[in-house]
Amino acid sequence: MTHESHRVQMARSLGRLLKGFQSLTSLPAMRAQRSHPSACVPCRTTVALPSLFSFKPRDFSLPNSSWSSEMMRLYDHYNSQCEVEAERGETRGGPWQRLPSYNRSLKYATGGVYLSKIIQSRARLFTRNIREPGAAFEYVLFVNKEEQRCVCIFQAGHLLEGPPGHVHGGAIATMIDNVTGTHATVLSGPVMTANLNINYRSPVPLGSTVLIESSLDTKEGRKTFISCKVTSTDGSKLHTEATALFLSINVSHLLRGG
Amino acid sequence: MTHESHRVQMARSLGRLLKGFQSLTSLPAMRAQRSHPSACVPCRTTVALPSLFSFKPRDFSLPNSSWSSEMMRLYDHYNSQCEVEAERGETRGGPWQRLPSYNRSLKYATGGVYLSKIIQSRARLFTRNIREPGAAFEYVLFVNKEEQRCVCIFQAGHLLEGPPGHVHGGAIATMIDNVTGTHATVLSGPVMTANLNINYRSPVPLGSTVLIESSLDTKEGRKTFISCKVTSTDGSKLHTEATALFLSINVSHLLRGG
Repeated sequence: MTHESHRVQMARSLGRLLKGFQSLTSLPAMRAQRSHPSACVPCRTTVALPSLFSFKPRDFSLPNSSWSSEMMRLYDHYNSQCEVEAERGETRGGPWQRLPSYNRSLKYATGGVYLSKIIQSRARLFTRNIREPGAAFEYVLFVNKEEQRCVCIFQAGHLLEGPPGHVHGGAIATMIDNVTGTHATVLSGPVMTANLNINYRSPVPLGSTVLIESSLDTKEGRKTFISCKVTSTDGSKLHTEATALFLSINVSHLLRGG
Repeated sequence: MTHESHRVQMARSLGRLLKGFQSLTSLPAMRAQRSHPSACVPCRTTVALPSLFSFKPRDFSLPNSSWSSEMMRLYDHYNSQCEVEAERGETRGGPWQRLPSYNRSLKYATGGVYLSKIIQSRARLFTRNIREPGAAFEYVLFVNKEEQRCVCIFQAGHLLEGPPGHVHGGAIATMIDNVTGTHATVLSGPVMTANLNINYRSPVPLGSTVLIESSLDTKEGRKTFISCKVTSTDGSKLHTEATALFLSINVSHLLRGG
């Protein structure tokens, strides 16, 4: 299939579903809907298609056996602050929220799991394109909406090598784009990266776990400015510093911009 | 094995072989040596180890069946300028030189193929970590030493997705780091990335072939400044612009810096 007909097909499919597109800003609503699939599945349907709309994609932000003890310790630290005890033994949302992570950005949309089967079905998110746990990017993001900052715990697998024994500068840039871009989406809805300015201070050893922290600098109209740093998990060593600029977009922009 | 013992092992092995480290600046010598393996293999050896030192690693810059006709057309265009006809039907080096591409940067060193089997043997260069041809990064670099510029022909596979149907900003950053870093190595010997400043102008459709061109801005002491742009293959559409700064290093720096 040509790229042109792919784009036409994508335009049609996305056009039908654009109204249902859920950005990361409305994740709780999306999760609630997924936990009650019966609410959106017609009772008398005889085709499988509608049920595909309620499929829950695999969430790659959950721990797997490849995670180091340091990765697990940090995951538990932030995850325990996602719910706090309220009155009468009940829990309520805490200061942090864990963000789910899928292997295509389409899957954040309502019906995205179905869409991803019919639009360039072999495509995979760059940071989730390798099946072997621990081999490439292992990461989980937490967002603190009140403090307008994000924390990502990132374990760099052996397939991310650049200089011997160290993580490739492009893999670090990829994680910085990923973390700041997700943060900008939480703050501003759908965005595209406009600028990344990255200073590499100290190489990251292959196999190590690092923290990637991002914070909002400012918002000006369509622009969201984010700062980011990559450090050792105890914060004592600065590996990388970066600033990022994102532009708010209408998702249909992608279909015109290609 | 711990990372610490990995580093100690790497330090010892690299220490023994540092004198033999061949940067990209001396590729022709390395290729000549490889084409005459008998010259460096003792005749009476009874162990396999020395022959490993002359193993020729797979060169990923050569065409494969996944390359599009556009990718092949551009490859032929530059490759045909790597050798030009001289007097009496003989050929001599042309203005362009194709750079070989291996799946670990260690493999550019003398004995690197052997080293890569004993040092973090599962590690793979980030841009060559997927076996399936055409699935991720397909690229070939040509350098023009007289004009101090590089051209990379890059075909973006389906596993590099970011926004639906388009290449991830991190994958573009990775290729920019790769091309400018290789160019800096050709100009200045071993380097590390110090800064990448990337402006994303127009998204790159998944599956497309683009040109990445880099040129030397200036050299100041240990610093090499390179500019880079990503365009459509006919040059009419600017996708990305970037500047990059590299610092010359002694390879042993990596062992201290981690």
